[in-house]
Amino acid sequence: MKLTCPQSQLNTHLALVSRVVSSRPTLPILANILFVADLDSQQVSLTGFDLNLGVQTSFGADVETGGRLTLPAKLLLDIVSRLPEGEITLEGDTNETLVTLTCSTGNYQVRGMNADEYPELPMVEGEDVIDLPVDALIEGLRGSLFAASGDESKQVLTGVHLLMEAEELEFAATDGHRLAVVQTLNPTLEDATPKPTNAKGNAPAFDVIVPGKALRELERMLQMQSTETIAVHFDQGQLVVKWTNQRSHNSSEDAPPVGGWTNRRLTSRLLEGQYPNYRQLIPRQFSRQMTIERRSLLGALERISVLADQRNSIVKFTLDSVKQELVVSVDAQDVGNGREAAPAQISGDDLEIAFNVKYLLEGLKVMNTSEVQMQFNTPTSPSVLSPLGGTKMTYLVMPVQVRS
Amino acid sequence: MKLTCPQSQLNTHLALVSRVVSSRPTLPILANILFVADLDSQQVSLTGFDLNLGVQTSFGADVETGGRLTLPAKLLLDIVSRLPEGEITLEGDTNETLVTLTCSTGNYQVRGMNADEYPELPMVEGEDVIDLPVDALIEGLRGSLFAASGDESKQVLTGVHLLMEAEELEFAATDGHRLAVVQTLNPTLEDATPKPTNAKGNAPAFDVIVPGKALRELERMLQMQSTETIAVHFDQGQLVVKWTNQRSHNSSEDAPPVGGWTNRRLTSRLLEGQYPNYRQLIPRQFSRQMTIERRSLLGALERISVLADQRNSIVKFTLDSVKQELVVSVDAQDVGNGREAAPAQISGDDLEIAFNVKYLLEGLKVMNTSEVQMQFNTPTSPSVLSPLGGTKMTYLVMPVQVRS
Repeated sequence: MKLTCPQSQLNTHLALVSRVVSSRPTLPILANILFVADLDSQQVSLTGFDLNLGVQTSFGADVETGGRLTLPAKLLLDIVSRLPEGEITLEGDTNETLVTLTCSTGNYQVRGMNADEYPELPMVEGEDVIDLPVDALIEGLRGSLFAASGDESKQVLTGVHLLMEAEELEFAATDGHRLAVVQTLNPTLEDATPKPTNAKGNAPAFDVIVPGKALRELERMLQMQSTETIAVHFDQGQLVVKWTNQRSHNSSEDAPPVGGWTNRRLTSRLLEGQYPNYRQLIPRQFSRQMTIERRSLLGALERISVLADQRNSIVKFTLDSVKQELVVSVDAQDVGNGREAAPAQISGDDLEIAFNVKYLLEGLKVMNTSEVQMQFNTPTSPSVLSPLGGTKMTYLVMPVQVRS
Repeated sequence: MKLTCPQSQLNTHLALVSRVVSSRPTLPILANILFVADLDSQQVSLTGFDLNLGVQTSFGADVETGGRLTLPAKLLLDIVSRLPEGEITLEGDTNETLVTLTCSTGNYQVRGMNADEYPELPMVEGEDVIDLPVDALIEGLRGSLFAASGDESKQVLTGVHLLMEAEELEFAATDGHRLAVVQTLNPTLEDATPKPTNAKGNAPAFDVIVPGKALRELERMLQMQSTETIAVHFDQGQLVVKWTNQRSHNSSEDAPPVGGWTNRRLTSRLLEGQYPNYRQLIPRQFSRQMTIERRSLLGALERISVLADQRNSIVKFTLDSVKQELVVSVDAQDVGNGREAAPAQISGDDLEIAFNVKYLLEGLKVMNTSEVQMQFNTPTSPSVLSPLGGTKMTYLVMPVQVRS
């Protein structure tokens, strides 16, 4: 293999795939990145894989000799990121295991491993590919991912439940203490949002649990992209997502940008098991309702949390329907106490109810509307926080019982 | 005590003194910050202290009732930094142990400890105060501090040796492997640099070892200041540094800025013991000399260090006086190898010599000239790196012996 490309390009693509390379890989070769250079198409693809999550990116380069080789991800990125700007040549020896990197100031030889040992990424097969709009995906991931459990022993709760039916895509995540549900692609909305389709022209349907780690990586990659839709495929316990990055598109129509299009792929093993029947947890009716400015509630809770974190993270809400005011307070006993008041539109009887301040903060942070609505029944039944306008998101939080 | 001041002001001063408050204080009260409010002068002073290093800052505020109290540093800073902009009122109860913080959105009560238990900072006494130019201090600290040992068991080597004699101030630091010496205030320079004086009008003299930790804090504080000179005093094993921050100076002459001047003080226990006689380590003559662009050497070593760090951090220099070229190379055996070449002006015979790449990188990073000079004798005798022009700095590095 021998290829030449700009340092900045190699660095960008290496940084992207290196993120999924494990620092403690299950197989030694998984500490490496797979390079495949194709002479005919003048394309190079880079792959990082940990057997669960895989990322592949391909881009145009000056390929003199095609071939396959693997190189240690961290070491290579550390070197390439420090190389001076300009062209870099990468050349493998006859066994493709000792690779020479040449730049304007010098050269480096790095020892790799035979590419034949590198496992294949799951492929997209068959026609059952669904095109999904990127904006809806980002919206759904932003509003749900934070509520998934970070505790690996919680199995399906470490993932996000994705449910597509009747042209509506629903994201749900819960760690047992709170639940975030986002509905996107709502077919009743008469907007210009592109509708999902599959190759057969049918309305697609799926019901899967995708690991949070893979979706966090997907969210991050999509935020850097300028593509409008991505192709999604579920098969044999695998998710495969593909798209073409159009950011480097030059001005002339139909012509590919210098170096060709950039193709990206992310694959992830799905989580197996039964996801909780979360819909039955959400109350249908509420006896009390409050609308409040999101920033003022967030600010007050961030200050209150400094004292709350000293003890048990509990914040008390006091809804005053006469004053139309919410008081949030904390009593961290021998450390101190705090009290903040903010105007709110409150309907229903007065209420005292307590929450874990961390759950409220995390939910408020992912909402991006100027106002939020909060609905309550009793001090011991679940409350629901939602952005007012914007994303259709339901964030259910269990209150904390406190001795008065 | 009762005082009112802007949130931004309280936050800035709290952040400053909190840095020296230990997370594991030797006395419980040293986790707190001492507040002293003076009714007559309408000044408030904040003090943080760990018995070795102390920082005090004072500023103008609306003092309604004078008093002294202490509050937990971290908790208070966490709250104050999150408070909304605008005036904050701080009021102690009759015992000055429960303090109420009031802002526009709410109020917080924080429990403190009686200020009588708070130890006094060492004071400046007597007339033996030396005025030193800030630029010279920053220059000296920048060129020496990095070479001090971070290993607490190394005692005097964790400090910087400060020697003032004949109007010249010398900074020296060594960890046993390398030595950095900076000379400033050189009286032979016919420039406008203010000369140090003491109150008696004599040329001052001192010979002390100051802990690196205190000097790092001083360097940081001075970089944020706009004062030209600071008052330095050594007494009874203590360093006391005082200055007035002029950054908030308003345009009208002679009038103090809104809220008055800001006075700062830093105190530190000195290190006791005999500092190594480092001057005898520096060779007087060299048989080989090289002048090279600092950035190109730094860049090459940063890349080489990626591979060098995989093994023993050793980089090899090959001086070629015919080609007028320096080759830096690394052989990390089963990982890989690298070689960079850069043009250099070389006099003397060709040489192969090896160094720990970390020491070279640290020295090159604090130099800020476009060229550096390196002087050598043999592959086993100390080499000296210096900036060409700029600071008068001597950085001695011991080579590493390698089997060929």
